[in-house]
Formats: sequence, C-alpha cells, structure tokens
Amino acid sequence: MFFIDNLHFDQNGLIPAIAQDWVDGAVLMMAWMNKESITKTLESGEVHYWSRSRKELWHKGKTSGHFQKLKGIRTDCDSDTILLSIEQIGSIACHTGERSCFFRDLETNKDVLHPPSNASSELFNVIESRKSNPEEGSYTNTLLKEGDNKILKKIGEETAEFIMACKDKNPISVANEAADLLFHMQVSLANQNVSWEEVLKVLVKRRGAPRRN
Amino acid sequence: MFFIDNLHFDQNGLIPAIAQDWVDGAVLMMAWMNKESITKTLESGEVHYWSRSRKELWHKGKTSGHFQKLKGIRTDCDSDTILLSIEQIGSIACHTGERSCFFRDLETNKDVLHPPSNASSELFNVIESRKSNPEEGSYTNTLLKEGDNKILKKIGEETAEFIMACKDKNPISVANEAADLLFHMQVSLANQNVSWEEVLKVLVKRRGAPRRN
Repeated sequence: MFFIDNLHFDQNGLIPAIAQDWVDGAVLMMAWMNKESITKTLESGEVHYWSRSRKELWHKGKTSGHFQKLKGIRTDCDSDTILLSIEQIGSIACHTGERSCFFRDLETNKDVLHPPSNASSELFNVIESRKSNPEEGSYTNTLLKEGDNKILKKIGEETAEFIMACKDKNPISVANEAADLLFHMQVSLANQNVSWEEVLKVLVKRRGAPRRN
Repeated sequence: MFFIDNLHFDQNGLIPAIAQDWVDGAVLMMAWMNKESITKTLESGEVHYWSRSRKELWHKGKTSGHFQKLKGIRTDCDSDTILLSIEQIGSIACHTGERSCFFRDLETNKDVLHPPSNASSELFNVIESRKSNPEEGSYTNTLLKEGDNKILKKIGEETAEFIMACKDKNPISVANEAADLLFHMQVSLANQNVSWEEVLKVLVKRRGAPRRN
C-alpha cells in the first residue's frame, strides 16, 4: 500500500517535504519528514513533520491550531523529495503569522506579500491591493469607483467580444478576450467582497475528490 | 544588494531550492544550491544548482536546452530554503521528460499526470483530458460534442446569471455563478484549441514585471 520503503532518506533518515496549498497552488513551507512522520501523516490525514531543532515528531498545528489536512502526497523522479498537497487550516502556515514562509525576496531582503502561485490568483491579489490602496490612473480603481453597473456592463461587453473571437476562430483574440473577461469578472468579485479563493473552492468541491478524501 | 550571507547553509554548504512555474504555480522540482550557484543564478538570470551526485555546478538546461529563466527568488522565514519562481523553457523540468519531477503518487506508486497547481489550471487539465478521452455521461463531453454555438450560448447564459447574482448581492450565488462562467469559458477555450496557459500568459504580460525583468 504505502511505498515509504522506496524513498531515499538522507544520512539522518530525513527527506524534504514541500507543502503546497491545494486550492491556489501557493508554496507555503518546506520541512522535513522521516518514516514515522510520513506514516502518521498517511494514517491521520494531518501532516506530521520531524522537527530537526526539537528532535521530535511535530504534529503541525497542534499548538497553533493551524493544522494541515492532507489532500495528496507525491514523490519526485528520484524519490528523495515529497510534495504535499494540503488544505491549510487558518490560512497561516508560517510561525510568524504569515500565510507562507516564503515572504521575503532574497535580492532585496524586503518582504513580499503573496507567495507565488497561479497568475489568475495573483491577478486577484493585485486587484484586492488596488482596492485597499487606490492608485492614481489605475483602470481597476476607475472601475471600482464607478461601481456595480459600470463593471457589469463591461462583463456583458467582454462576453460579447469573447464570443465573437470564438466565432472568428482567432486563437490570439480568444486568449486576449478570455483574459479580459477573467479580469473584469475578478474586479466584479472584489467589488462584491467575494474572494477568488471562494470561486476556486466551488470548482474543487464540484470536481469531487480527485485525490485523498 | 544580495543577501546570500544571511542564508543558513547546511554542513555541506548547501540549501534546498524549490522551482515553481511562474505562470501556473506548478511545483516542478527541488534541487540544491550553494553560494556559487546562487550568485551565478542571480548574475545570469538562469538557474544554476549544485549537483550533489556530480559534485559540480549545474547550469540547468545546458545539455537538454531546458533552461530555467529566473523570475523571482525568495527565502523562507528561517532562511534555510529558497523558492525560485521560474519560466521553464520547453515545459520540461524533469530528466525523465515529464513537466514536473513530482508525477508519482506516494500512496499508490502510480503516475499522476499533472503536478498540483491552481484549481483553475487543474480544471482546465480535466477538461482537456475529457476532450482526448471522452467519458460517457460527462457534461463536458456533451458540450464539446454539440460544439461552438451550444457552448457560446451557455457563456451568454452564465454571464447573465453572474450579473444577476451580483445585482442580488448574494455572495454564495456570486461565487457559484463565477465558477460556472469560468468553467464554460474553459470548455470554450478547449474547443478552440487555446490553452488556459495562453490566457494566463496574457495576464502576466499585461501586469508587466512585478519581479525580475
């Protein structure tokens, strides 16, 4: 059933494990596992790591409440790294209170807000940030200022343009109009205080359970 | 400028580096870097790792042509892991020819096609797979079989339902109708042989260069 014996652990019996958000693909943290923590993770459905500093089994979230529910577990081509697909309870994986541990740019040493994930999720983050910090001359802010009717008229317009591009069978226009429609849909969501994550969660729920659970 | 000296390298002078696709957030591989490979990566804009097996600097893609263009480089909260945001040339990161090294499920030991990324990208993967392997009773296949006019009528319908949900200020309906519209837009794209990645690339291009380049 479990193929733990095929894994290549290092000289300390450890293997690196990357935790990735199951819904939007953000990389949240990297920690270490040993055989026992992998077994516990598979049995309980909650991620257990091996703490190298405390030298003990570490049930992630046991003190903070920020558990990680296992959705999928993969190994790489040479079996020396694990990729965990997880649902992060509380949306906080880092002990600093950040969503992801990877919030610092190495070149500038400055904090960067969102861990890289999908371009569609990142676009929504940009729209949300314009909403809270309006920028002079920003098209997003113009839309948000004019409100519902203006934004929804644009949705109708972009849909018509997408349909025409499809009827014209012009792949470049199709991609461009799809991007336009997606952007305006996201502005509309931001204006309604509905997050992109909520939309993605609907998709995940509908798809049923392609992996665990 | 560079904050390499703040990083915590292990006793061999190495640090694990996760490579993530810049556009759709898929985790492609994990390898190791030392000070020299990080410096080379930052200087050249192409990822260099340290090969533990060959004990030498490894310019990723030098023999295969599958270079990794650096888009962003982050470190985690305790500075002992690196997250690389990359553009994968050739769409193949793994030496086996797979896009990602993480193509094997640990529990079943079976190959799994797509590395976890964003739910919107994964939805498109499911639609594409229905297109190449039709399934009896699949709604996606019914749509694809009926073709352009049927799918585009649905786009119009879903747009109208999304607009009504927004006018009703019903957040649950808004999320549901946005998911419907997104799904039908993706079916339409699949029917036009335009990939979701092409749409995401339009978004990335428009956003300019929030990180490197």
